[in-house]
Amino acid sequence: MEEAVTPSDRDRLEDLCRLMRTWILESTHAAGSGHPTSSLSAVELMAGLFFTGQLHYDPSDPDYANNDRVIFSKGHASPLLYALWAAADQIDEDDLLTYRDFNSPLEGHPTRRFELAEAATGSLGQGLSIGVGKALSAKRLDRLPCRTYVLLGDSEMAEGSQWEAVQIAAHYGLDNLVGLLDVNRLGQRGPTQFGHDLRAYQQRLEAFGWNVELVEDGHDLERVETALAFAQKASGRPTMVVAKTLKGRGVSFLEDEEGWHGKALDEDQLKRALDEIGGVDRSLRGEIARPERIEFAEPAKEQPAGDVEYALGDQVATRDGYGSALCRIAPLFPGLVALDGEVSNSTRAKAFREEHPDRFFEMFIAEQNMAGVALGMALRGKTPFVSTFAAFLTRAFDQVRMSVHSGAGINFVGSHAGVSIGQDGPSQMGLEDLAMFRLLPGSTVLYPSDAVSTERLVEAMAREPGVCYLRTTRGDTPVIYEGDEEFPIGGCKVLRHSDRDIGVIVAAGVTLHEALAAHDTLRERGVAVRVIDLYSVKPLDAETLRLAAEATGFVLTVEDHYPEGGLGEAVASALADHPAPVFCMAVDHRPRSGEPERLRDEEGISANAIVNMVSNLASTMQPNFR
Amino acid sequence: MEEAVTPSDRDRLEDLCRLMRTWILESTHAAGSGHPTSSLSAVELMAGLFFTGQLHYDPSDPDYANNDRVIFSKGHASPLLYALWAAADQIDEDDLLTYRDFNSPLEGHPTRRFELAEAATGSLGQGLSIGVGKALSAKRLDRLPCRTYVLLGDSEMAEGSQWEAVQIAAHYGLDNLVGLLDVNRLGQRGPTQFGHDLRAYQQRLEAFGWNVELVEDGHDLERVETALAFAQKASGRPTMVVAKTLKGRGVSFLEDEEGWHGKALDEDQLKRALDEIGGVDRSLRGEIARPERIEFAEPAKEQPAGDVEYALGDQVATRDGYGSALCRIAPLFPGLVALDGEVSNSTRAKAFREEHPDRFFEMFIAEQNMAGVALGMALRGKTPFVSTFAAFLTRAFDQVRMSVHSGAGINFVGSHAGVSIGQDGPSQMGLEDLAMFRLLPGSTVLYPSDAVSTERLVEAMAREPGVCYLRTTRGDTPVIYEGDEEFPIGGCKVLRHSDRDIGVIVAAGVTLHEALAAHDTLRERGVAVRVIDLYSVKPLDAETLRLAAEATGFVLTVEDHYPEGGLGEAVASALADHPAPVFCMAVDHRPRSGEPERLRDEEGISANAIVNMVSNLASTMQPNFR
Repeated sequence: MEEAVTPSDRDRLEDLCRLMRTWILESTHAAGSGHPTSSLSAVELMAGLFFTGQLHYDPSDPDYANNDRVIFSKGHASPLLYALWAAADQIDEDDLLTYRDFNSPLEGHPTRRFELAEAATGSLGQGLSIGVGKALSAKRLDRLPCRTYVLLGDSEMAEGSQWEAVQIAAHYGLDNLVGLLDVNRLGQRGPTQFGHDLRAYQQRLEAFGWNVELVEDGHDLERVETALAFAQKASGRPTMVVAKTLKGRGVSFLEDEEGWHGKALDEDQLKRALDEIGGVDRSLRGEIARPERIEFAEPAKEQPAGDVEYALGDQVATRDGYGSALCRIAPLFPGLVALDGEVSNSTRAKAFREEHPDRFFEMFIAEQNMAGVALGMALRGKTPFVSTFAAFLTRAFDQVRMSVHSGAGINFVGSHAGVSIGQDGPSQMGLEDLAMFRLLPGSTVLYPSDAVSTERLVEAMAREPGVCYLRTTRGDTPVIYEGDEEFPIGGCKVLRHSDRDIGVIVAAGVTLHEALAAHDTLRERGVAVRVIDLYSVKPLDAETLRLAAEATGFVLTVEDHYPEGGLGEAVASALADHPAPVFCMAVDHRPRSGEPERLRDEEGISANAIVNMVSNLASTMQPNFR
Repeated sequence: MEEAVTPSDRDRLEDLCRLMRTWILESTHAAGSGHPTSSLSAVELMAGLFFTGQLHYDPSDPDYANNDRVIFSKGHASPLLYALWAAADQIDEDDLLTYRDFNSPLEGHPTRRFELAEAATGSLGQGLSIGVGKALSAKRLDRLPCRTYVLLGDSEMAEGSQWEAVQIAAHYGLDNLVGLLDVNRLGQRGPTQFGHDLRAYQQRLEAFGWNVELVEDGHDLERVETALAFAQKASGRPTMVVAKTLKGRGVSFLEDEEGWHGKALDEDQLKRALDEIGGVDRSLRGEIARPERIEFAEPAKEQPAGDVEYALGDQVATRDGYGSALCRIAPLFPGLVALDGEVSNSTRAKAFREEHPDRFFEMFIAEQNMAGVALGMALRGKTPFVSTFAAFLTRAFDQVRMSVHSGAGINFVGSHAGVSIGQDGPSQMGLEDLAMFRLLPGSTVLYPSDAVSTERLVEAMAREPGVCYLRTTRGDTPVIYEGDEEFPIGGCKVLRHSDRDIGVIVAAGVTLHEALAAHDTLRERGVAVRVIDLYSVKPLDAETLRLAAEATGFVLTVEDHYPEGGLGEAVASALADHPAPVFCMAVDHRPRSGEPERLRDEEGISANAIVNMVSNLASTMQPNFR
């Protein structure tokens, strides 16, 4: 516990709050947009955290491992975030007026372009999961005493992802996690479901196993401090400080009024507001307590990974390759952790769970929170691998999308891809995953066809920055590569090749084996085709594809995925300036339960379907290609 | 209340439960896969609902409006679903053995190919939202006394979407909604977070405003019946029957044992299990009570919609066109309802909310549940329009994906598309939406550029089956079409055209206006290009695109969306068999806050960027095209 705050300190802090209010109004006025009222409600909550010795943070060393962490889950309160750091003397007052400018790191909602922002937020209901990831890292992996604080809005408590995070934080007993719930009663278009009923939140949070500190007046700095001090004493449970606040607090015509969400003040309104706030001492700054400088345990050393050992022709599912790869490379990446959504026996993350229980985190059936926790861990320097069925990663699309703006490296692994899972039916079939992950700026999308390429690509992912995705297959496929084969990201493998090839088949994963079988059948019929394993769907080896297209008559893509946005469209758009026509075979109608082989046949992505397609194309081609 | 069940009735019902257990084991054995143990735990819960006069349903008329509804949120318990309907004499015993066959409607997880399944389920945590949609339809729209029952698994209570549904059901006081929570303690890979601690669920649900009926032995039919009877008496609140059950109940070597999730019995195991269950009377069938045949109020009559009235050149945001269109066509579609995720002032659904408060449903910031509720309403014959920021629809991708398998018509509307929203920054920018909605089998993706086309397309969507998506823009754009222009789905508009066009620019929405401006600048420079408004991104008018491509030298697509899976790849893949090269301009690096014009420039999707691109292409083209 810190020294008690004296009354004169509190007067000073109140002055600082008035200065921050001024900055909030000025910066949003200068930008002509932003959320001043949503910022004003949380001024005392956050000032009470930052400037009373509760928060421990060294701004000159944001990455210092034992810093506390502060996440603005209500990212639209960014003017307050920047005002806080200006009050902590980390942003020049003038720079606050660049808020929302193209060249300013002070974006409309925080991103990691502002380095003191702990994570990019702005899609509501995500910050608590990220906080769980950071708190879990500190408690279970780094074993550090630092705390994670998350500022939450009341409206965003309607997001289910919050309750996923609430639940998992209680499950892991994260007493180093503190939420600050800014109950300002008003959402964007009007009152929230519970208005100022603090007990509605208390009841729910306590039922979910949290300690709750109620603050009946969230603008009373003394009460805020007391609540935060109690939060530090909580043991075995996370704490939520639930504070009644007023949106627009401090300006009479904004305070608790509807119709002011996300609106900057005009010239005249600003003048009236600043008059009300009164003169401020613009030189005032607050002091943040520094974290304890502790002796860190010697970090785990990198040890070499084992060899990849499979015999050609062995039947091994790529999901098994994934589980095996995690175990194999674990010594090489001491920061590697695995998270799974209650299906580790299916995704095969189980193998890692059994070998490294301390580095495995069961996230239960709550994919949104799982993605957020992984992001929080990645931002604390870990290398997370996140697995569930490919289909269920769609559940976390918003979290995955947002993680790009936090700039961290996260590895997602989706098993049970495509109609090839068979009888379980369409709800369990990942048919959108390649498209979903391709969409993200800077993402990497990998789709191995055998255990060896899976092993190699898992290792490559662990080194790759940004969001990476690996797609695995449920059923066994034969090993087609030697254990020491290299699989650089952005490459591909030309597996079958002759001077007489009339076209090139591009496939990956399960359809690569269909393509190889089709190649053999066609060869028996005197038709030569090239076959490319496009294991790296993004980035994609456009040059090799282009050369193959130019050397042959057509490109035929085959994928166990819907036609849109997947492997076929990736190839079609890479070759859209046109060396040769591209034809795409994909799952083009709603699938159903059935035998995998039957389903591939029905959807036109089987070896048979490829043979028929190539035969048709051959018959319509120029004579010199026949 | 029904007549009390007599002891001999109960004996009969116990025999029927044994018969259903037999069928569950036999059908999964025949399929060689499936989830017998997850089905066995809920036999009494569901038999107690179906065959004791609690459920009111006319199987000969599944669409009868006053039928109760039963949703299997734990879709993997499909063997029980089919066994129940066999016990109700609606499936032949022999047909149970076709379970999971390609030609059988009895899919691995229920889809609407089995017509007594109320919704497709199998991605966990979705059924309760669908149930809320049905219960809300009955209570608030159709004003019918029927009830909606949802069978839930304990593992899936970890999904945040469940708590979104729990919360909204309480908010709307849905006392016609009853959940049956099958607490069988075991998830897929092991114990759930709370095991058999019924109170953990009770506490949470009561805190969220539900009535809870605990059943300490969920295999005791009398207790199940009593709980269900109490549920029927609940007023103003939904009820959850929380029942302690045993996974694999009825077979000693399966009962409460780990390692049996999703496993069918082999020949020998089946024999042992059936021996334990003992002889069954295979002719036994249960009786489902019939619903009250009531006089329905005269359905609202279709009234003509008003005219579309804008003046050419008027500056109107397409999101305003959306709000206006909903109000305009409301008389034409009496079943039209609107749902919004607490941003109706931004999406402009507000206009409809104000004119038709009885047909508008505030869903708060909980997009997953919103999509599920819309599906439930659609399955009850409503025409839902669902709006939020395009970016936040990614939150509901799994629900949207699943709704395809329920085959209902839902209209999604995403506002604030693209970098054109400007200063709010990347978290609020919809840049993945076109790709996400294009991915779905049978989906329709529309992107209007002015208020008139928006009005027309909203009307077209309301008539279109399947999942439809409309993308709107935040800022104003000029009206470029006359009010009576037609916009058929699957069409496009050739807006600029000459015999000397060297290429064709394909754009939609905000970039269409950039393309038109570029066209004018280029014309001044003596360069003629064609301009196409591709307002229907899917289905897409490939023929018109092809003709334009053949008549000119190149196709240039421009979109305010990431490059993958959107308009550009749609065009590239439609023209992949190659009349002319396709070049795509899109948001190809991580965007940030800034002025919309500046951002379009930086991302290379502005009029300037188009002019530069076309000039470059012109200079490299064959002389006859220059």
